[in-house]
Amino acid sequence: MTPSPSPGSDVNQRQPKRTRFRDLADQYLRALTEDVLPFWQQHSLDMEEGGYFTCLDRTGNVFDTDKFVWLQGRQVWTFAMLYNRLAKNPRWLEIAAHGAKFLRTHGRDADGNWYFALTRSGDPLVQPHSIFADCFAAMGFGQYALASGDREAERLALDTYRNILRRKANPKGKYSKIVPFTRPLRSLALPMILSNLTVELGWLLEPGERDRMLGTCIDEVMAFHDPGRGLLFEQTAPGGMHVDSFEGRLINPGHGIEATWFLMDIARRRSDQALIQRATEILLHTLNFGWDNEHGGIFYFLDAEGKPPQQLEWDQKLWWVHIETLVALALSYALTGNPECWTWYEKVHDYTWQKFPDPVNGEWFGYLNRQGQVLLPLKGGKWKGCFHVPRGLYMCHTIFKELAERND
Amino acid sequence: MTPSPSPGSDVNQRQPKRTRFRDLADQYLRALTEDVLPFWQQHSLDMEEGGYFTCLDRTGNVFDTDKFVWLQGRQVWTFAMLYNRLAKNPRWLEIAAHGAKFLRTHGRDADGNWYFALTRSGDPLVQPHSIFADCFAAMGFGQYALASGDREAERLALDTYRNILRRKANPKGKYSKIVPFTRPLRSLALPMILSNLTVELGWLLEPGERDRMLGTCIDEVMAFHDPGRGLLFEQTAPGGMHVDSFEGRLINPGHGIEATWFLMDIARRRSDQALIQRATEILLHTLNFGWDNEHGGIFYFLDAEGKPPQQLEWDQKLWWVHIETLVALALSYALTGNPECWTWYEKVHDYTWQKFPDPVNGEWFGYLNRQGQVLLPLKGGKWKGCFHVPRGLYMCHTIFKELAERND
Repeated sequence: MTPSPSPGSDVNQRQPKRTRFRDLADQYLRALTEDVLPFWQQHSLDMEEGGYFTCLDRTGNVFDTDKFVWLQGRQVWTFAMLYNRLAKNPRWLEIAAHGAKFLRTHGRDADGNWYFALTRSGDPLVQPHSIFADCFAAMGFGQYALASGDREAERLALDTYRNILRRKANPKGKYSKIVPFTRPLRSLALPMILSNLTVELGWLLEPGERDRMLGTCIDEVMAFHDPGRGLLFEQTAPGGMHVDSFEGRLINPGHGIEATWFLMDIARRRSDQALIQRATEILLHTLNFGWDNEHGGIFYFLDAEGKPPQQLEWDQKLWWVHIETLVALALSYALTGNPECWTWYEKVHDYTWQKFPDPVNGEWFGYLNRQGQVLLPLKGGKWKGCFHVPRGLYMCHTIFKELAERND
Repeated sequence: MTPSPSPGSDVNQRQPKRTRFRDLADQYLRALTEDVLPFWQQHSLDMEEGGYFTCLDRTGNVFDTDKFVWLQGRQVWTFAMLYNRLAKNPRWLEIAAHGAKFLRTHGRDADGNWYFALTRSGDPLVQPHSIFADCFAAMGFGQYALASGDREAERLALDTYRNILRRKANPKGKYSKIVPFTRPLRSLALPMILSNLTVELGWLLEPGERDRMLGTCIDEVMAFHDPGRGLLFEQTAPGGMHVDSFEGRLINPGHGIEATWFLMDIARRRSDQALIQRATEILLHTLNFGWDNEHGGIFYFLDAEGKPPQQLEWDQKLWWVHIETLVALALSYALTGNPECWTWYEKVHDYTWQKFPDPVNGEWFGYLNRQGQVLLPLKGGKWKGCFHVPRGLYMCHTIFKELAERND
């Protein structure tokens, strides 16, 4: 990663930087390998019916057995990714294989679309209405193919990726409730996830195709950027214009922030300093906009014009928003040395590490109320699985490890 | 209403009962005619494009112009109902006609199904995926036909009612995301609303048809009753069995409570004391289950087995839940004289009147957090319109007026 942070520009000197980076790298690795992964290894494997339980209560007890395809795909990805990148632990590969087998057997309809939810034994419960089920299945099978050398997994990842690209213009298909033409809107979520998925599957694509797709992804994500406010909007008209409606005014700070590190991750591979700079600016604007000055933490949903948002959960503090913000800030600091990124990093770090990890039973709480108290005591459910926390811990570990070595 | 409450059985004697009833009747009437109706009369009429604005901020400013069909139908109903039952105020009839005209012109697709949402000018935005849009359109046109003598409104109410009955077995139709057969579930919401709608449209139906339908509605609502817990479940298998899943464990205390007064309203017309008794028992069980002993107020969603609910807004305190509870408790007390109903009435009254009305700008807040603080400062939005508050105020006014006269 270049350039180095400029020493001396830092405003938040608690301890010598290299020591701080080393401590952080250790903290993230310990949390990953001694707390979070053991929790999922111990509680989430369904040894009778296959796949993973994701609905785990505070102590790890299974409180619901439904299997949500995108969370199954994400857990396959997590264990395969750590096998590929962190350590060749054969148990991790076995766990990834365990989920991949279940998904391969039960996950798709006759047209190759991935169901949204299955029963414990794999019967289809909810139709393939969400293209994000497909995105995370492709991501899981991509890493699993890399880890295992399994050619069928490779084919499944690529077939799913190409099916996503085919469905991209109309992702909800027949399940869309929107009347066509009255007020066409497009969403940030899909190009944002595709920008990460395309990096993930890059080893499976022709370099030319990969680079063209990454260029498209950057353009499509940046089309949601409002230069005046410096924010990514969640939905715009196809021409990029704002629409004055609940959907058109919506800001999801966590999405915007996660998108900035996906962009920086592409930009550093291309040595695109201008894009790193733009992503960092969006990140800082989004934090200034989305931070709760009264109670701390980052809001879940806001209206760009300060009107009441439609989402009743707007003021909640969610685990994924905060861990993705730590990744984005650590990466932007490593790539730019911008002292504002470091000041924000320490502020979000303090809030996140104080509020989300469960000191009694391990892993992280997912949902806090505005005041920072636990709203739901679960460790996993329909939306939280084995993904954002371990991915973020791994990412932050590697970023700080490199920073510590660079400063040594 | 019979029987009379038994004097002396009351545990909560703040003042002589007849004075208390008279004061309450006055309080509810004043709030209705001097606060709530003027707010909507002043702020919600769209004199340029027709219909009503429902997205009103704290002071009554329009913050979004989309028109949600069910809220349009509900506001037609409110003003027509008050014209029919409270006072022949010609302005109320004009306001009902204003919304009826907009709905009649823009509300339906070619098959006679009601769209879910329209733009300000009436272009269709969201497809007719929700049968509740149809239910509240039928309810609105029924009262409006009674108020105006408009035969086309009468036909529209009846046609819509019959279309609802045709769609009843598969209300979401092609918009359903559920895979058929794996885990069939039916919902309390539709039979509950139909029990009220059938009473509403009773004057348009043949007495035989009306009575048969009411019998069916009672049976269908009671099929969600769990005799062990004394609660209405939100969803069960077609045979009435519980399903151990998020949906199958869901309790929506506000729905359960609203259903009990719909049942009592039918039962008093039929002098069915047994049903009044059963509904009262469900009401009291639901309050004991759904009341927040820590912060006061009634939770929005709970899991029957105490597991984490899927709804992130589970702990919020909503306006409609509380005003519907006041109606149910006032009615059950008037019909049974059960002192437990009166104790609960006073407790819910104190919470509701202290927390929801806005003393500065009038009308009621809709959404409080668990602690009872305002979560969203709006007076109307996508779900809150001119309906539950005025209906509840009118109902409570009439119940307490009758109780006061009975005690005089």
